[in-house]
Amino acid sequence: MKKLNAGITAPKGYRAAGVFCGIKKKKLDLAMLTSDIPAQAAGAFTRNVVCAAPVHWDRRIIALGSPVSAVVINSGNANACTGKQGMEDTEAMAKLTGTLLGTPMDAVLICSTGVIGVPLPMEQVSSGITAASAELGRGSAKDDDAAQSILTTDTFIKQECVEIDIEGTPVRIAGIAKGSGMIHPNMATMLSFILTDAAVEEGLLQELLGSSIQDSYNMISIDGDTSTNDTVLALANGAAGNPVITRNSKHLETFTEAFDAVNASLARQIVLDGEGATKFIEARVSGAPSKEDARKLVKSVITSNLVKTAFFGEDANWGRILCAMGYSGAFFTPETTRLEISSAGGSLLLLDEGTPAGFDEAQALKVLKEREITITITLSDGSDSAAAWGCDLSYEYVKINGEYRT
Amino acid sequence: MKKLNAGITAPKGYRAAGVFCGIKKKKLDLAMLTSDIPAQAAGAFTRNVVCAAPVHWDRRIIALGSPVSAVVINSGNANACTGKQGMEDTEAMAKLTGTLLGTPMDAVLICSTGVIGVPLPMEQVSSGITAASAELGRGSAKDDDAAQSILTTDTFIKQECVEIDIEGTPVRIAGIAKGSGMIHPNMATMLSFILTDAAVEEGLLQELLGSSIQDSYNMISIDGDTSTNDTVLALANGAAGNPVITRNSKHLETFTEAFDAVNASLARQIVLDGEGATKFIEARVSGAPSKEDARKLVKSVITSNLVKTAFFGEDANWGRILCAMGYSGAFFTPETTRLEISSAGGSLLLLDEGTPAGFDEAQALKVLKEREITITITLSDGSDSAAAWGCDLSYEYVKINGEYRT
Repeated sequence: MKKLNAGITAPKGYRAAGVFCGIKKKKLDLAMLTSDIPAQAAGAFTRNVVCAAPVHWDRRIIALGSPVSAVVINSGNANACTGKQGMEDTEAMAKLTGTLLGTPMDAVLICSTGVIGVPLPMEQVSSGITAASAELGRGSAKDDDAAQSILTTDTFIKQECVEIDIEGTPVRIAGIAKGSGMIHPNMATMLSFILTDAAVEEGLLQELLGSSIQDSYNMISIDGDTSTNDTVLALANGAAGNPVITRNSKHLETFTEAFDAVNASLARQIVLDGEGATKFIEARVSGAPSKEDARKLVKSVITSNLVKTAFFGEDANWGRILCAMGYSGAFFTPETTRLEISSAGGSLLLLDEGTPAGFDEAQALKVLKEREITITITLSDGSDSAAAWGCDLSYEYVKINGEYRT
Repeated sequence: MKKLNAGITAPKGYRAAGVFCGIKKKKLDLAMLTSDIPAQAAGAFTRNVVCAAPVHWDRRIIALGSPVSAVVINSGNANACTGKQGMEDTEAMAKLTGTLLGTPMDAVLICSTGVIGVPLPMEQVSSGITAASAELGRGSAKDDDAAQSILTTDTFIKQECVEIDIEGTPVRIAGIAKGSGMIHPNMATMLSFILTDAAVEEGLLQELLGSSIQDSYNMISIDGDTSTNDTVLALANGAAGNPVITRNSKHLETFTEAFDAVNASLARQIVLDGEGATKFIEARVSGAPSKEDARKLVKSVITSNLVKTAFFGEDANWGRILCAMGYSGAFFTPETTRLEISSAGGSLLLLDEGTPAGFDEAQALKVLKEREITITITLSDGSDSAAAWGCDLSYEYVKINGEYRT
């Protein structure tokens, strides 16, 4: 697997555009991604009971299993809690895109992110779709425009691209994402789009995505909330011309590893851009009795407000870590638990066989003052492991989310 | 039911003391509550896998079902993550108390709250138990000492007392509690002690407590974390001389209502003293499909960091409320949901039949600038209701929990 310094159109057969159409005040607010060959599509969506119109639309398209030619994403307005009008607007977006590109409207996926409870400004959205369809292209300028257009309060674009070799054929997987920005009047949405030119057996992409999100987007936490619009979409158009990757293919592992790496990288970038975050925290556990227990343990640690504020305060507060593990709902034996934190500043043993290790405060500060910190949990309850990524909880988080009116 | 301005020894046959023994630097740090007649005891404990030595001890005593004569509570040290030494220290506390009071050690319940991972300073603790046993008494001075001694970073004592009439016999229920104070180096603990002079059928008190905590302590949220030491204990000594309250007694409802009221009041006081809280938020739901769904919905709203910061920012952010309901795991129909907020400043309809109501910003600010705010959620999915209590998330919360070293 080779990491490329390239954007969303690095895989063959894809084009992209990002335009400003006036949903936001100034910034790019509408992106279009297209595949020249109709692509196999996969999707993973928010489990929130309250979900936005485009989520309903995309779920239906993905369930149909029919090929997809385009994805349209607008930022600035989430088209959530907008009732019947919202569904009609989403359908109008798909219809217009289909007409402009000469594809069925059921081959068009739609995502929206931004304000909720306000109908989409359809005049602006329609002009944006028309403009984007005219500006579709390949290369870094188009890639950047697309990556920019999906952002809300993110402070940087999030993209990743890797290349693998399948029997001499280069296959690429690229992705862009937006993170957990709260915008007026509200709410965190995570969007991620993965494009690959791999040829993949019918239905396999959905299986891979379902599994890949478990160890990427599902293992990050900005503030524990799940949005009405969270969506991950993946397209595979086969333009690379590789021998088809099947469920029994010897190349499945290579492809899966690369696909997972792109998703994990985007998840990591979302956390790095978490609102008000001053520190990036990775929690790793090994020796857990099951994969599910392992995931619950690290997720609970990363989600705890007490753990988050302790890291903001650069405090080696192992008690809060152990406590968060304790109420995670996962099984583990506290008496044999080992806890360690490490960073570029060194490492620090906090708990050994369930007993406080007693540490040097100066050394603790050296480890904790770094921006990226890893919590390593070693259990003796089994052989499963997991990792989760989070950030600290700062004054700035409260400020952004409590006082954005000022 | 009559509310009395009285403390923990208002019910007959109980004595109390609170002393300073040197676990903390200055403040009272050890309380003793005794019943002249061995009392029926009930307990509810943290579900955290990591639980402190005294929790193990108390669970065993409550499971035995044998009568209880005393409860000893120390603050300043939680005796958690202290291994074999911790269990020995808890036992030594019970043994010394038993010897001093002339009761079996299995008739003594123990609670600890404070620093974790540090062995109890047993010399101080022993001198404290000895001093407290000599100072046991009744009346407001003793009540206040006991209520003070169990606090950590709480800013006020939490107590409640009510009186009911059972066929002409006055019966009292009193309680004290401590809230979610974080202390160096760490962690939130909730303790609550309920004493009643009611005569209650064997085993009934445990049933009533198990049910009562569901709508009181389990429905509050300071920061979503569950401590290693959370404990609620109730004693009933029968000193009032009332006709025994049985499972089929016509007085069961009167007693249950009063018992629940004391627990609800203490839970409310704990929230009011939440760290850094500037606002008290009550979430009420009606029309839910089940009691469990109802509880999940309001608990999710109260626990959401996004909802909490919105209230801190005095923002009528109904989207965040609806979103938190959506990921609660409970069933409800967003399309028929009604959302309203109210306070001493008036009321404000936010969402009607799932549709944004459109509100006046000036009126919103009038409602939101108050210190106590109620969120009323009306569903059309059934007939169950629930309430939960929480606080906002402020700079001060981050400061207390992130920077207490400075």
